Amino acid sequence: MRKIDQSFSVPFRYQVLFTEGLFKSDNTCLVDTITAGHSPRPPKILVVVDQGVQEHHPLLLADIKRYGKQHQDRFQLIDEILVVPGGEPAKNDPKLVDTILEAVEAHGIDRHSYVLAIGGGAVLDMVGYAASIAHRGVRLVRVPTTVLSQNDSGIGVKNGINFFGKKNFLGAFDPPFAVINDAHFLLTLDDRDWRAGIAEAIKVALIKDAAFFEQLEREAVAVAGRSMEPMQDQIFRCAELHAEHIRGGDPFEKGSSRPLDFGHWAAHKLEQMTNFELRHGEAVAIGIALDVIYSHLEGRLDEASYLRVIRLIETLGFSLFVPELKQNLRNPEKLDSVIRGLEEFREHLGGELTIMLIEEIGRGVEVHEMDTELIIQSIEKLEELSKARKTSPEKLIHT
Amino acid sequence: MRKIDQSFSVPFRYQVLFTEGLFKSDNTCLVDTITAGHSPRPPKILVVVDQGVQEHHPLLLADIKRYGKQHQDRFQLIDEILVVPGGEPAKNDPKLVDTILEAVEAHGIDRHSYVLAIGGGAVLDMVGYAASIAHRGVRLVRVPTTVLSQNDSGIGVKNGINFFGKKNFLGAFDPPFAVINDAHFLLTLDDRDWRAGIAEAIKVALIKDAAFFEQLEREAVAVAGRSMEPMQDQIFRCAELHAEHIRGGDPFEKGSSRPLDFGHWAAHKLEQMTNFELRHGEAVAIGIALDVIYSHLEGRLDEASYLRVIRLIETLGFSLFVPELKQNLRNPEKLDSVIRGLEEFREHLGGELTIMLIEEIGRGVEVHEMDTELIIQSIEKLEELSKARKTSPEKLIHT
Ligand SMILES: NC(=O)c1ccc[n+]([C@@H]2O[C@H](COP(=O)([O-])OP(=O)(O)OC[C@H]3O[C@@H](n4cnc5c(N)ncnc54)[C@H](O)[C@@H]3O)[C@@H](O)[C@H]2O)c1
Ligand SMILES: NC(=O)c1ccc[n+]([C@@H]2O[C@H](COP(=O)([O-])OP(=O)(O)OC[C@H]3O[C@@H](n4cnc5c(N)ncnc54)[C@H](O)[C@@H]3O)[C@@H](O)[C@H]2O)c1
Ligand SMILES: [Zn+2]
Ligand SMILES: [Zn+2]
Repeated sequence: MRKIDQSFSVPFRYQVLFTEGLFKSDNTCLVDTITAGHSPRPPKILVVVDQGVQEHHPLLLADIKRYGKQHQDRFQLIDEILVVPGGEPAKNDPKLVDTILEAVEAHGIDRHSYVLAIGGGAVLDMVGYAASIAHRGVRLVRVPTTVLSQNDSGIGVKNGINFFGKKNFLGAFDPPFAVINDAHFLLTLDDRDWRAGIAEAIKVALIKDAAFFEQLEREAVAVAGRSMEPMQDQIFRCAELHAEHIRGGDPFEKGSSRPLDFGHWAAHKLEQMTNFELRHGEAVAIGIALDVIYSHLEGRLDEASYLRVIRLIETLGFSLFVPELKQNLRNPEKLDSVIRGLEEFREHLGGELTIMLIEEIGRGVEVHEMDTELIIQSIEKLEELSKARKTSPEKLIHT
Repeated sequence: MRKIDQSFSVPFRYQVLFTEGLFKSDNTCLVDTITAGHSPRPPKILVVVDQGVQEHHPLLLADIKRYGKQHQDRFQLIDEILVVPGGEPAKNDPKLVDTILEAVEAHGIDRHSYVLAIGGGAVLDMVGYAASIAHRGVRLVRVPTTVLSQNDSGIGVKNGINFFGKKNFLGAFDPPFAVINDAHFLLTLDDRDWRAGIAEAIKVALIKDAAFFEQLEREAVAVAGRSMEPMQDQIFRCAELHAEHIRGGDPFEKGSSRPLDFGHWAAHKLEQMTNFELRHGEAVAIGIALDVIYSHLEGRLDEASYLRVIRLIETLGFSLFVPELKQNLRNPEKLDSVIRGLEEFREHLGGELTIMLIEEIGRGVEVHEMDTELIIQSIEKLEELSKARKTSPEKLIHT
């Protein structure tokens, strides 16, 4: 039998830039980034803004237009700036994807033009999806405006929208042209969104970097009090660890292993069970707490270490427990039992179940099954710890 | 300013297999291919069939089901085999993509399951697009059933559908899991589709492989008479040259150069101007004829060589001319002038115009502009050659 063995590698390269005041007249970060793409004429840029961002930054659209005018010899800003709903609604309405595609078509955005997406992780995911299917991919510059999107989701290679009521059912792996993190946007986040993103930093510190975990401990009180400098440091380091992981691993996730999804099997399920009342990061914080307790009960992680994790999560102001955790806990075959999350996680990976647990702070280990009885015990422990917290707030003091 | 430099390469590997009688009980090509994917349990396969293929192969669905039953311990065939319209209608109706997605959802096709697409280039493009956006990409096995899809479109990394009336407006770069070329399907092609695909072989021979061009000349009469053996050889060599080109070049087309699109600037425009009455390959044959004449008139290609190309195209039975070529020929700003095709080609590349021309048989050269007056002369020459053919058929005899 004749055959052709085809094999090749596709190189990807992009920068994650950190700046403040992206559209200030003396900030050349954006214009330098897009003109580095060697377009034959001043390239077009179509801008899409998260409505939540726009409402908190009433001068933003005017600033963008002024910036466009200032640099009109170097790029061509499309007049019509699109404003789309923020948060999960951005990913639940496929018509928004069509809106972006229509603008791409109407304004002649081609593979050497840019879509600039400014917003939280949800808007970036949705706009990124539209950009990646239009003309088989137009250039996307992401400007993440939340902690979570600056330290995790916005710097990676995935995009997507929800479909058939399923999270990220549609999407693509498609690296951005560039990412620009502007710290200025973080000032207007509400406390929950400010905090939520830190869960991803705890996650990646626990599986990869003990020194970073210690930094998170040292700076927890300051960050909980909305101190900007340690937050920026943490975002940078977290983004760096995520970026390292992507380039060192399996960027397009062809295998069944997803080490960065530590704490996420329960988190995904809790987001769904709470109808996304729980923010992704809040759910991840609970998922981490659950999986460190489990790691301890299974004899992998010592008591002192798991308690340090719990303390950090509490100091940052996260809840450790939601009632959904106990729903049908002993009927794991029920769709609204958190334990169903394991099977859904396996389906999501599309192969063998692979779960990350913790052996010591800074070192994760992959396992292929979890013991239902131990999960139940872990959840009970979590409830107990959470009650203890409520009754004796002094326990929270960071030591 | 802090920044993270992200760079990595994503490796892709797949085989293009050549077989006959894919679903015969002693043919293990398919079952071997999909079980090489190391799924933890017998993987699921969702089959989608081109209606044109199904109509010409009335036993096909039954054969597939029998094959599924025979190998049920090694893979799980989804009972519901989807049959979708063939040809360009497959790409013009986005609802068909939804149909595939619904089946993916309903049958729990995950990233370690397979979609098996059997059909012409249009069906493969549409099904491939659905497969690449579902769960950010489920595994696609392509079974191309036309000459064009077996020697060119089906073995590459692109998929797509038409949207906003624009060819391939939506799509992705996404290599298949495997491609299986079954020669048996070619028996039922009508003469136009049989012939059309050979245009891609002429194209790639002209820019890359003089010896292959000579083979095409030697075998032209036999192939025009539907001889299977030389056709299989030509498909193999053409596929090999395309595969080589993809791995040696810029698989995801990040630059502005598309060497394999020799002859295609006019072809794309003619397809559109004839409302796809002209098959892609038929349009490519005309586009090649036009661009070799142009190469000659510009002084790049000697007369004997360009006449050999014209003779080959005629011997195979292609038309050299369609009236649309002269439509608004002297008003190239008009939307229905073939010369507009140049500007549309540039837009499609999304950057600088890059056109492949021929310096000698087997060697292409890229240029960045074409002279309108010379294009007009080339078209007039084409009309003249085509009339000469009609009046003196003896000129057609292959020498
Ligand atoms: N692509 C990935 O790899 C990946 C990874 C993790 C999470 N995600 C996705 O990210 C999404 C969550 O993103 P998120 O946590 O950034 O929140 P979000 O995008 O859901 O935004 C939360 C809210 O904050 C508002 N907002 C955004 N920026 C603001 C600002 N600077 N000031 C005030 N309000 C602002 C938004 O309008 C929204 O109402 C989820 O959909 C999740 O699936 C994607
Ligand atoms: N993805 C790529 O890289 C790429 C490259 C070139 C062309 N294409 C696309 O390929 C499409 C053209 O594909 P094509 O030339 O294979 O034709 P096609 O898919 O348009 O099919 C032509 C007709 O033949 C029928 N048919 C298919 N197989 C048959 C068989 N074995 N017996 C009888 N009838 C059969 C179909 O039902 C259809 O009616 C275009 O949409 C073009 O855009 C894609
Ligand atoms: Zn996360
Ligand atoms: Zn072609």
